[in-house]
Amino acid sequence: MTGYTATVTVRLEQGVLDPEAETTRRALERLGFELSDLRAADSFEIDIEADSVADARERVTEMTEQLLANPTLHDYEIEVEQR
Amino acid sequence: MTGYTATVTVRLEQGVLDPEAETTRRALERLGFELSDLRAADSFEIDIEADSVADARERVTEMTEQLLANPTLHDYEIEVEQR
Repeated sequence: MTGYTATVTVRLEQGVLDPEAETTRRALERLGFELSDLRAADSFEIDIEADSVADARERVTEMTEQLLANPTLHDYEIEVEQR
Repeated sequence: MTGYTATVTVRLEQGVLDPEAETTRRALERLGFELSDLRAADSFEIDIEADSVADARERVTEMTEQLLANPTLHDYEIEVEQR
């Protein structure tokens, strides 16, 4: 077994309104910053022991689909690195 | 001016308790998953127009220090890519 760290990024699907991101963008503009767009995402770093990168990725994908992301609202991305 | 996308990842500093991450880890374990650790982070993708990568990074660093991260609690990381 080897130690891996998987980074899961969970974003709202395009077209889903994100009031938190909108509020953050406006607050930055009120502070005088210029920006074209701001998107917010949740990110999870998960340390697991697994037999291979493929095994780690498979298990983290299951975790994401069962708990971390809501498939109706979210897209997700998973990166796996050996620790 | 060129379009850049900066990704800002804001994490709690090591040693700061994170009840949300702890709850998520326990929920995954209750679902039968085995994991060694789970850390949660907030991630912001910011689109801006800037003269150079260095200019984009400098402005996004200011945004992060003024609004997105609390230096007492958080570490942050910024990646900048041309769009």
